[in-house]
Amino acid sequence: MPSLQMTAESQSVAVPTLERRYTTVRTTSEALARPLSAEDQCVQSMPDASPTKWHLAHTTWFFERLILASRNGYRPFDPHYDHLFNSYYLSIGTPHLRAERGLLTRPDIDEILAYRNHVDEAMRSVLDDPKVFKLVELGLHHEQQHQELLLTDIKHAFSKNPLEPAYRPTQLSAVETASTLRWCEHDGGTIEIGHRGPDFAFDNETPRHAVLLRPFRIASRLVTCGEYLGFIEDGGYRRPEFWLSDGWALVQREKWTAPLYWRDRTVFTLHGRRPLNTAEPVVHASFYEAAAYADWAGKRLPTEFEWEAVAERLSVAGNFLDADLLHPAPAGGGELEQMFGDAWEWTRSSYDPYPGFRPFEGPASEYNGKFMVGQMVLRGGSCATPPDHMRPSYRNFFSPSARWQFSGIRLAEDI
Amino acid sequence: MPSLQMTAESQSVAVPTLERRYTTVRTTSEALARPLSAEDQCVQSMPDASPTKWHLAHTTWFFERLILASRNGYRPFDPHYDHLFNSYYLSIGTPHLRAERGLLTRPDIDEILAYRNHVDEAMRSVLDDPKVFKLVELGLHHEQQHQELLLTDIKHAFSKNPLEPAYRPTQLSAVETASTLRWCEHDGGTIEIGHRGPDFAFDNETPRHAVLLRPFRIASRLVTCGEYLGFIEDGGYRRPEFWLSDGWALVQREKWTAPLYWRDRTVFTLHGRRPLNTAEPVVHASFYEAAAYADWAGKRLPTEFEWEAVAERLSVAGNFLDADLLHPAPAGGGELEQMFGDAWEWTRSSYDPYPGFRPFEGPASEYNGKFMVGQMVLRGGSCATPPDHMRPSYRNFFSPSARWQFSGIRLAEDI
Amino acid sequence: MPSLQMTAESQSVAVPTLERRYTTVRTTSEALARPLSAEDQCVQSMPDASPTKWHLAHTTWFFERLILASRNGYRPFDPHYDHLFNSYYLSIGTPHLRAERGLLTRPDIDEILAYRNHVDEAMRSVLDDPKVFKLVELGLHHEQQHQELLLTDIKHAFSKNPLEPAYRPTQLSAVETASTLRWCEHDGGTIEIGHRGPDFAFDNETPRHAVLLRPFRIASRLVTCGEYLGFIEDGGYRRPEFWLSDGWALVQREKWTAPLYWRDRTVFTLHGRRPLNTAEPVVHASFYEAAAYADWAGKRLPTEFEWEAVAERLSVAGNFLDADLLHPAPAGGGELEQMFGDAWEWTRSSYDPYPGFRPFEGPASEYNGKFMVGQMVLRGGSCATPPDHMRPSYRNFFSPSARWQFSGIRLAEDI
Amino acid sequence: MPSLQMTAESQSVAVPTLERRYTTVRTTSEALARPLSAEDQCVQSMPDASPTKWHLAHTTWFFERLILASRNGYRPFDPHYDHLFNSYYLSIGTPHLRAERGLLTRPDIDEILAYRNHVDEAMRSVLDDPKVFKLVELGLHHEQQHQELLLTDIKHAFSKNPLEPAYRPTQLSAVETASTLRWCEHDGGTIEIGHRGPDFAFDNETPRHAVLLRPFRIASRLVTCGEYLGFIEDGGYRRPEFWLSDGWALVQREKWTAPLYWRDRTVFTLHGRRPLNTAEPVVHASFYEAAAYADWAGKRLPTEFEWEAVAERLSVAGNFLDADLLHPAPAGGGELEQMFGDAWEWTRSSYDPYPGFRPFEGPASEYNGKFMVGQMVLRGGSCATPPDHMRPSYRNFFSPSARWQFSGIRLAEDI
Repeated sequence: MPSLQMTAESQSVAVPTLERRYTTVRTTSEALARPLSAEDQCVQSMPDASPTKWHLAHTTWFFERLILASRNGYRPFDPHYDHLFNSYYLSIGTPHLRAERGLLTRPDIDEILAYRNHVDEAMRSVLDDPKVFKLVELGLHHEQQHQELLLTDIKHAFSKNPLEPAYRPTQLSAVETASTLRWCEHDGGTIEIGHRGPDFAFDNETPRHAVLLRPFRIASRLVTCGEYLGFIEDGGYRRPEFWLSDGWALVQREKWTAPLYWRDRTVFTLHGRRPLNTAEPVVHASFYEAAAYADWAGKRLPTEFEWEAVAERLSVAGNFLDADLLHPAPAGGGELEQMFGDAWEWTRSSYDPYPGFRPFEGPASEYNGKFMVGQMVLRGGSCATPPDHMRPSYRNFFSPSARWQFSGIRLAEDI
Repeated sequence: MPSLQMTAESQSVAVPTLERRYTTVRTTSEALARPLSAEDQCVQSMPDASPTKWHLAHTTWFFERLILASRNGYRPFDPHYDHLFNSYYLSIGTPHLRAERGLLTRPDIDEILAYRNHVDEAMRSVLDDPKVFKLVELGLHHEQQHQELLLTDIKHAFSKNPLEPAYRPTQLSAVETASTLRWCEHDGGTIEIGHRGPDFAFDNETPRHAVLLRPFRIASRLVTCGEYLGFIEDGGYRRPEFWLSDGWALVQREKWTAPLYWRDRTVFTLHGRRPLNTAEPVVHASFYEAAAYADWAGKRLPTEFEWEAVAERLSVAGNFLDADLLHPAPAGGGELEQMFGDAWEWTRSSYDPYPGFRPFEGPASEYNGKFMVGQMVLRGGSCATPPDHMRPSYRNFFSPSARWQFSGIRLAEDI
Repeated sequence: MPSLQMTAESQSVAVPTLERRYTTVRTTSEALARPLSAEDQCVQSMPDASPTKWHLAHTTWFFERLILASRNGYRPFDPHYDHLFNSYYLSIGTPHLRAERGLLTRPDIDEILAYRNHVDEAMRSVLDDPKVFKLVELGLHHEQQHQELLLTDIKHAFSKNPLEPAYRPTQLSAVETASTLRWCEHDGGTIEIGHRGPDFAFDNETPRHAVLLRPFRIASRLVTCGEYLGFIEDGGYRRPEFWLSDGWALVQREKWTAPLYWRDRTVFTLHGRRPLNTAEPVVHASFYEAAAYADWAGKRLPTEFEWEAVAERLSVAGNFLDADLLHPAPAGGGELEQMFGDAWEWTRSSYDPYPGFRPFEGPASEYNGKFMVGQMVLRGGSCATPPDHMRPSYRNFFSPSARWQFSGIRLAEDI
Repeated sequence: MPSLQMTAESQSVAVPTLERRYTTVRTTSEALARPLSAEDQCVQSMPDASPTKWHLAHTTWFFERLILASRNGYRPFDPHYDHLFNSYYLSIGTPHLRAERGLLTRPDIDEILAYRNHVDEAMRSVLDDPKVFKLVELGLHHEQQHQELLLTDIKHAFSKNPLEPAYRPTQLSAVETASTLRWCEHDGGTIEIGHRGPDFAFDNETPRHAVLLRPFRIASRLVTCGEYLGFIEDGGYRRPEFWLSDGWALVQREKWTAPLYWRDRTVFTLHGRRPLNTAEPVVHASFYEAAAYADWAGKRLPTEFEWEAVAERLSVAGNFLDADLLHPAPAGGGELEQMFGDAWEWTRSSYDPYPGFRPFEGPASEYNGKFMVGQMVLRGGSCATPPDHMRPSYRNFFSPSARWQFSGIRLAEDI
């Protein structure tokens, strides 16, 4: 139902914008890869992560396959790429094994940059075709998602190297206090949830629909490393009473004693390892840890509907990728902070379809819908999210055990 | 918040009923075990299943530990049992390893029946104490859950034996037609969901709260084996387009080609193996299969709220354990059939807490809440559910991959 | 080449002996099972172990399948048994899954005893047929192997039950000193190795052949628990320098800190748990532990040829199954003790074929030869081995990681 | 006992030779890496394999750690390397995780080449010190082993890339006939086995000792792909009767239907994929496949003693690394061919210590001895083995399941 076709009139003034936006997004990906060596761009440190150069190629394949492939006269760059750089689109073909993306030493970076140029050139000639407008928008948002993954994936890879290389060798700033935690009340009631208006949104944000909420309070900022340290020091990782059953089993099996990237009182960042800053938001927590922390604190996580009800009143601004900090920053003070940027916020909502949900048409139907089981919703974006990629209705989702994203915690409670 | 204490007045007339109910439930468990040999009662065919005699002992331990242990003068039957027959209550102690329940050849059946007698005698002297009323109710509903598991677990164990023994050697009846599928409309709107009134309910059914529903249609009966065969014969297990991503991965890994217990055109039942009856409801489907079937059929599964909105108007009657059929029966005709009994119905709802949810107090707090992640809700009870155990607000939950319950499919669609 | 056919003359006086031996072996198996309940006889605690009643049935199947099946007029007891009780004879059919033997709650014990009677009756009518003499011998030695396994398998199963039941509830004797360790010299030279003469031997003990040995010394008795404790207390399980690489990896992965069945200063025996007797031979050690101990002690393990060179001079006597002790006993003094009985002795010899080795003919060809890779040879028999089952040339074999047999350590060194 | 120290006299003329040999070996490694890109040199396609640049660094670390580290005035290149490039020497420290060598995107190739230069410079100043002569020899033979692994590891990595890159893009020669298979007799008797003389040998080739052999015949050449095809076409991979039990289990689990790198009638080589040449020796067979083939052919594999008895009479010449073919070549005719070079030959001998075996002294004690369990011996070297690395007494060893080496089959039989 959310059609990816668009009528000509609806985007008549959009073309110059689209061209500019296309160029910006595409060059941003390449800029993010530039500090990395050929080896860095090839490595895959776990099946969930992908190599940098695979991100560069896959996002290009997405445009080639969904837009260019069906157009007269388009010559594919290399017929093998349809297999190598398909992620999970089974309606298109059999993707290369996810866990073996890191074995693709060939094609090398130069070939992949040539692939990008080849596709960019072809794309520029179709950007003024209104029929592809929505697919281009989708491709650009898709590429922005992979920009964030490129960063979280290389962070994971670097963390597995005993040398602990820094993606960004500069020092992180030294604000060491966070604003006082306060509670913002919401009266609940009938709330409209989901995307509205002509701008781009993923299918999973639609259709907009009404939801009934009870009154609740939401924390004015994210949980800090210092607050999370209190949980750890109170035996949080040794006391099953705070944990969901699956989470406790995972803590036991993996011997977790802190969020990912913590060691003693230090954390590994994209700027290398550095002392724990207690004022910063805790990140790289799984949903299980977020829920256990909330239980320990006598609170709970907000639902995705509560989060959106509060977020819709705010302007979409915060510590995003363009701030070029690549790490969450301490809350500085204000009524309701860090709702956008800094850290994705785990919600107490499973990733279920909205009532009346219909996937995108065509191959993009596999984009979101087929993952709607066993995942939890996260909201708000992080320090690695491009700012024009974010919306109040944006639904990110990960397995409750995932920790390699910039995932943090905001508390809520019933009134 | 859902207190398990009760004031004296609220249940003044309940005691004789409670005694009668206690006796009925307890003797029913033993009657269900009686057709089984000592070896049958000891076996555990997978970590998810438990031995019959473990069910008999664990349900007894539940009364002993939650009610008797704290009372003056009660002498535990055997101090080891607190470890052996604790299922997952970490606030009480360290349970014996779940996957090794089948290694407990000792204590033998006679000892476990003696344990049951010991506890029953002690329990009879406390049933008139109003302070324990709610805990006794909980213990009885707990034991009824295990009655159903006893049957589905032994069915699984017998299915792994090439001799394919029958739990119930008698023939299954031979109705071979099902009523025509029709669609029942519901206008949606603001619906009250969850348990209401003074009768027993689990904590996960509360608090009662309003939910907004869109108009929808729901199928008049369960999907039949014949209809499901259409899905199989149309390549259902070979076509990824119908499946959730995790489901498709499971189909590939486990080489599923049909629901559990199907082989060629036969199915294994508690009455032994017999030819597929196309009129019967399909059971032993996972959530993934239910969702894939619905997608293939151009429909969807109902949410648990839609199901409850429809079910609340109906009387709780159907093919339950007391019908003594131990298998779902073909739909006979009527406006809305098989909502209760026959088969648990997978819903398109993740098992999330209701707004304002509070677990039971005390050790029973671990009963439901800690499983609220990664599971899907099923509704309505099955042919193995005791009838007085069921309510419209009852929320059962299993992993989306689980197939050894009598889990079936009812379709729905948007209007 | 080792033919299982025999000429009439060669065994003319053997028939009465054979009948007596057949009866003795068959009744011994049943006597070993008798102290066990129906549940005990059904349980399988790991894939390497088998249920008691499976041992009773499989040994019976062996006679039925290799001797009776091809004879005119024999009526199989139950056609399913050919699948259920085949262990690994792929030339005969597809055996039931090894790891699922414990799920066979049916047939029950009474049926299996009836099966034994049925086959025994048929067997008695063929024992005087010279053509089957060697196969009967093979079947009896096969059954004796399973008698030992029956005991070590139930010991393992009981050890997994927190109640730690005793197979034999009586007390173990209390000798608490062992004889002083001395070293017996052997000059080496050309030694004949392997089975000689007309009596029964397995194919893997043949052909007899000459081997060159260097001079060596061998310990006068087995390593005691007290000596092994010295290894543990010297950090044996924490110091990689003593271990083979695979052994060290296993120690790390399984967190081994002592032989199987040790806990603090107690050991679990077929008589239940009891304090460690430092004078007893250490048993339930893996090959890796035996080799690490020898390295720590500055010695080595003997090769199987060295062991046999020494053993061939001795009479086959010791603490075997008929001593009815079911546990190794401290060495009492003498030139060369415990070579037979008490504990199987790990040798520094891989289980390779002897030069000129030919497997038995027919289905029995799968008996030994197909396991000749990745296993180590053990010699001498244990307290659970029937005495008339043992020979100096007898080659037992297990994976170097196996610990559930009565496997112990004898040291050797070069001169 | 095999001392790695040497007296001054014993190698007075050896120094110039040693310097030349040092330079040759070291530059050969770098030449082998040169055709590979930075990404190629970083990838690890399975835990058994290592990245090219890791081979370059580890062989360098071996000289640094065993020779330079203890010398006055030596400054280690980078203190982290002691952890990163230690393979398995636990007496030296904790090696970096074997399975994560491919995650070391840093240090990059330039740093590793600088490391090599740094160590080479320091080494050149110590090569005339007689005390290090034997350790240098060990280090050079060690590096030669890694030259072969470098090639087999990159072959495996390239085979996992759907693009199937060629290490050497040139065409393979087209000889398509092999010499006729003949049988060479050996009378057996007392044979001296093991290394003799002052030249370098690994500890595992010593001490030289006498072994008794029966008369036997050995095939005049390796088994060809064409002959192996006969096994496949006769159902070799579907008929358990030919297989060792563990091998059959592996065939089933891994769904093997041919040697590694075969697909339909093509094979993947270091020159890329090309049609099967039936005249070439079959390679990339596991021991299980070699033994199954031999059984199917009615023959057996030779023992390592039989192989050495025959090989000792021959000059060490054949298709080695210096032939620069990088693939085995068809046998051309001659009495006894391909004993050296072309393919490592699986023997029917477990990798057990020779009588009187003593490991090297010092850290090199971990070189060979700790792997003497669970492995099979291979003899003769392959097309990837440097020629001056080979000896008749050379014992290579791999797990019976390993297939990524150039491992082939030579048959033998009893007379």
